[in-house]
Amino acid sequence: MKKLINAPDDVVAEALAGMALAHADLIRVQPDPLVIVRADAPIANKVGIISGGGSGHEPMHGGFVGRGMLDAACPGHIFTSPVPDQMLAATRAVDAGRGVLQIVKNYTGDVMNFEMAAELAAAEGIEVATVITNDDVAVENSTWTAGRRGVGLTVLLEKIVGAAAEAGADLATLTALAQRVNAEGRSMGMALTSCTVPNVGRPGFDLPEGEIELGIGIHGEPGRYRVALAPAAEIAAMLVAPILEDLPFQRGDQVLAFVNGMGGTPLIELYLMYRELHKLLAARGIHIRRQLIGNYITSLDMAGCSFTLLRLDDHLTQLWDAPVLTPALRWGH
Amino acid sequence: MKKLINAPDDVVAEALAGMALAHADLIRVQPDPLVIVRADAPIANKVGIISGGGSGHEPMHGGFVGRGMLDAACPGHIFTSPVPDQMLAATRAVDAGRGVLQIVKNYTGDVMNFEMAAELAAAEGIEVATVITNDDVAVENSTWTAGRRGVGLTVLLEKIVGAAAEAGADLATLTALAQRVNAEGRSMGMALTSCTVPNVGRPGFDLPEGEIELGIGIHGEPGRYRVALAPAAEIAAMLVAPILEDLPFQRGDQVLAFVNGMGGTPLIELYLMYRELHKLLAARGIHIRRQLIGNYITSLDMAGCSFTLLRLDDHLTQLWDAPVLTPALRWGH
Repeated sequence: MKKLINAPDDVVAEALAGMALAHADLIRVQPDPLVIVRADAPIANKVGIISGGGSGHEPMHGGFVGRGMLDAACPGHIFTSPVPDQMLAATRAVDAGRGVLQIVKNYTGDVMNFEMAAELAAAEGIEVATVITNDDVAVENSTWTAGRRGVGLTVLLEKIVGAAAEAGADLATLTALAQRVNAEGRSMGMALTSCTVPNVGRPGFDLPEGEIELGIGIHGEPGRYRVALAPAAEIAAMLVAPILEDLPFQRGDQVLAFVNGMGGTPLIELYLMYRELHKLLAARGIHIRRQLIGNYITSLDMAGCSFTLLRLDDHLTQLWDAPVLTPALRWGH
Repeated sequence: MKKLINAPDDVVAEALAGMALAHADLIRVQPDPLVIVRADAPIANKVGIISGGGSGHEPMHGGFVGRGMLDAACPGHIFTSPVPDQMLAATRAVDAGRGVLQIVKNYTGDVMNFEMAAELAAAEGIEVATVITNDDVAVENSTWTAGRRGVGLTVLLEKIVGAAAEAGADLATLTALAQRVNAEGRSMGMALTSCTVPNVGRPGFDLPEGEIELGIGIHGEPGRYRVALAPAAEIAAMLVAPILEDLPFQRGDQVLAFVNGMGGTPLIELYLMYRELHKLLAARGIHIRRQLIGNYITSLDMAGCSFTLLRLDDHLTQLWDAPVLTPALRWGH
């Protein structure tokens, strides 16, 4: 294992300390229980938006804490759910009396622990609502989920719902918006290589030189199937087809197209994949109205990418375009 | 070789086509000779700022074309200098009568070809000035340079000089500013792994499991020495010491600290390295006034990182903070 780390057990805490030093104007990191909180939280008259999950997916979620997106994020150990005490601390830190929305990727541990935290917060008189993302079309059930996994759409949802919260929407409106975004988006990913959890010290699975894994999860859990390494155009087609069929997306749809890198894939390859995605969508009469290209929901050092498509209307587009100021996404400020 | 590409010879053109599709509001890509140009160039009454070099370092330089940074960039084949025709086309595309500044990383081929283009442009009556970056303290001469290599500081210089150009500075002022930034900054990098040029199909050099290369170049060319893989704190110290000694940076200095990923290193490790850098500088009484953390000048899929320190005064800080709107850097808009 070759990584820029000290002790494997300290990776998350030390990386978060680095984030806190770098972005003290935007975030603070509360220790024990560990929570990343917007520097100026709680914001008067604003519904709090929180998320969280295992670490190893950076910049998600901590990199999305700030103005116009998340109010707090709960980082677990690498590829491990955070504990309810973290979500409860996040909820307390961001509640300003109008309630808190939890955005939860569909993994069994995350869902269970956020649910427990919501009950504890409710007992303290804080109103909590929960939306679960499950956009991954690759598999119906997986190693760590009942039902579909929540993946790339979570990034887009956090941006859009965060913008609406910043504009003053109430908890019921935000919950309905988040459910709608989840209903309008689909994702699928692939891996060229495995990834190595620092505590384990070796790749999580074996992917031979000539093979790729389609429908991979963000923890290296198995996908749909393995195929021989293929040209980018063919890989893009294998990712797009199940996404389009599932919603289904239709001729005339306008979408936000998100090409996400898994952490070890350089930008030159992501732009090349974006061109393939653009061609495939144009051929079916689907118009890319907005796009996001880069490493936003990663799997440590895994090489590979995922596509997410979100159907846009004017309202969602306005919320996407609204100003955001976080360590990982910033525009309009 | 496992990459998200089609034919190795088409990687650069296809990735640039993807960039053009994604960022049509900011840039256009002119074919034959291949140049990335700011969408609204030439800008009346503004000195044009151009740069360029081999591809494989994305987002540098094409990702820095836009408002407040570069007016054009010339992409060569991967790890290969662009040709003079590209720089000449870029110069013509951005000249608005107040001249053009070339920002050139110190590699023999780049320097020679930019020089030839400057002569051709001068013959057409366009005033051209050139600034060469040579911030890499690792080696005095290298595989592809006479003198030191230009590396991470180039990103910071393009931002700062771009801001001054946007504010209306003339060619002589911008040239002096660029020379000053180059004089005030130093860099050093390291690699955990090699990188693979698509046309070659195998790693450019062999770096055994337990070793790292200190002072690596951005094309995988040799650095200062190889050492055993060490904890992040020790690696950070090995990078910082030669940087600080060289300028030299001194107690009381204020700096812009840039932790750059080489393309295959995930963000979690870069933030961890930023914490180490922060500790090392604090111990010497050097204050980090601004920071940049991410993959900005890369070597394809190489894992590793580089540190760049730039001594700041109020003027350079204001120029760094000024609005920028490019595919890879954006704030204040």
